[in-house]
Amino acid sequence: MTRVVFLGRLAREDVTRRLQSIAGVDLFVSEDMDEILHELPAAEVLVTPDVRGDDSKRLRDALHAPGCKVRWVQCLSAGYEGLMRFGFPESIPLANQGGAVAPAVAEHAFALMLGLLRRIPESVLAKGRHQWDRSFSTTTGALEGRVLAVIGFGNVGRQVAKRARAFDMHVIGVTRSGRPDPLADEIHPVAKLHEVLARAEAIVITAAQTGDNRHMIGAKELSVCKRDAILVNVARGGLLDAAALQEALTQGTIAAAALDVTEPEPLPEDHPLWDCPNLILTSHIAGGGSKKSRGRILDVISENFELFRAGKPLKHVVNAA
Amino acid sequence: MTRVVFLGRLAREDVTRRLQSIAGVDLFVSEDMDEILHELPAAEVLVTPDVRGDDSKRLRDALHAPGCKVRWVQCLSAGYEGLMRFGFPESIPLANQGGAVAPAVAEHAFALMLGLLRRIPESVLAKGRHQWDRSFSTTTGALEGRVLAVIGFGNVGRQVAKRARAFDMHVIGVTRSGRPDPLADEIHPVAKLHEVLARAEAIVITAAQTGDNRHMIGAKELSVCKRDAILVNVARGGLLDAAALQEALTQGTIAAAALDVTEPEPLPEDHPLWDCPNLILTSHIAGGGSKKSRGRILDVISENFELFRAGKPLKHVVNAA
Repeated sequence: MTRVVFLGRLAREDVTRRLQSIAGVDLFVSEDMDEILHELPAAEVLVTPDVRGDDSKRLRDALHAPGCKVRWVQCLSAGYEGLMRFGFPESIPLANQGGAVAPAVAEHAFALMLGLLRRIPESVLAKGRHQWDRSFSTTTGALEGRVLAVIGFGNVGRQVAKRARAFDMHVIGVTRSGRPDPLADEIHPVAKLHEVLARAEAIVITAAQTGDNRHMIGAKELSVCKRDAILVNVARGGLLDAAALQEALTQGTIAAAALDVTEPEPLPEDHPLWDCPNLILTSHIAGGGSKKSRGRILDVISENFELFRAGKPLKHVVNAA
Repeated sequence: MTRVVFLGRLAREDVTRRLQSIAGVDLFVSEDMDEILHELPAAEVLVTPDVRGDDSKRLRDALHAPGCKVRWVQCLSAGYEGLMRFGFPESIPLANQGGAVAPAVAEHAFALMLGLLRRIPESVLAKGRHQWDRSFSTTTGALEGRVLAVIGFGNVGRQVAKRARAFDMHVIGVTRSGRPDPLADEIHPVAKLHEVLARAEAIVITAAQTGDNRHMIGAKELSVCKRDAILVNVARGGLLDAAALQEALTQGTIAAAALDVTEPEPLPEDHPLWDCPNLILTSHIAGGGSKKSRGRILDVISENFELFRAGKPLKHVVNAA
């Protein structure tokens, strides 16, 4: 038997059902961290959403404690900053759900790009006024033929690129390694970021936020952008300097932007971004909405269980040596 | 020399330049219908936008007049209802611009579908209230995995299908002939419309409006739809019974709709559609915005000129015998 502890705060029924369907799993489920920590020392596997604050510290301590038998932590979300925040044991593989929600996030990125170019906000406001307003129709734009810079070419970036190809865009990925990818027309290393931004007519930020890339898009980066460029952030708010963006939109340095993520979140009621022109704001909802995501998350669990039992390397490990 | 008369009300400079670049073209350009009609009897080719009302009648009379030498009319738009309205001579080939604006229209269809599913209108209104509102995040949807019915599988329908494939949708085309198309997973004849609608989770109307398909989507058709279906019309307002749509949206017969075209246009200020829930309205702007469209229109002109000179059948003839 494999003793599995599941912090059941996310998709509890579905995940429980899937774990119970795996032969030889001895399952404990609770939404309560005290109960989880009580059961953890005897467990081999922990299944959990990303956790924050005090929960994260207590979990870290329990995993570091002498005699802890946990040999795999499966995170149910794409993000795992909370679990890593206070130091996650290097000796325990931490897996995330891979690209399970990436298609939904990519769809959201297209909703935002197309929303900006096809003037959906202006149309929504005109509808409220009962006004057949064609004045903005001369300023609509299109994706076809545009140069798209995808900052971070991981699961989400690749899903964005796949759709961009069908929209006849020219796809440039920006990654740490700069290694080519069949879904991109070009891939460049982060060192070439400014050169890529200077050519881009659409920019989508999909990178993971790490210790060293906060505000990787700031005043300097925005200053090299084309004036007709549009910018979309579906990754993490901290990757983008909001004050610099606000200035760029006000000055017309870039044409428009759309953010699903901000710094901080939720965005305070008196934050100047709310009144920023040419900006769509959504409330960190990019990852939701696809019925297929849950199935993919469950499949990652099952697949990793098979690999775990076979003593093989797990998939989607994010703290890999 | 080929005498060409160009009613220069649309893209005048670009079209004039292209016509002048063709050797052996003797060109007359005017925005004034009186001047055009004066020059027409001696011309072999008329290049024109779609025209309406009295202009349309006068042009019809001139083309029908004995001794008229015109042997080709090239329409610069996709729509040509105005030119056909009062009877266009069957003996003169009328060509439109083919699929020149189809990619822009397809992009607009995706802006509308994704706008509905990703709750862009709600986000726009929440931004106005400075409100980080996640209450609607549980009702977001995704395109991936959805069954898409494309009503009319012409230039626009095919461009929609091409993009839908990249979004991992199941594409069903509905056409007059029901002939298979490589861009669709299934194609069915109009006789099967109800069966297709009953399976569809997204419906995009891209059909040309003809004499016999007014209100082809009406109360009966909406009644067979899935309750979570979304409906988009980027074709012609008359294809859809607006009163029936309003009823369906109010009753929850379908989940949401988005219209770029209405009947009538512009939509009067007191029309009940303005206050209809779960509805995005844009002001017949789907065809615009792509810089590439103009180049494609000019290429159609050049290509048809070559065919005309060679005495070969023209492309994109819409009144073909």
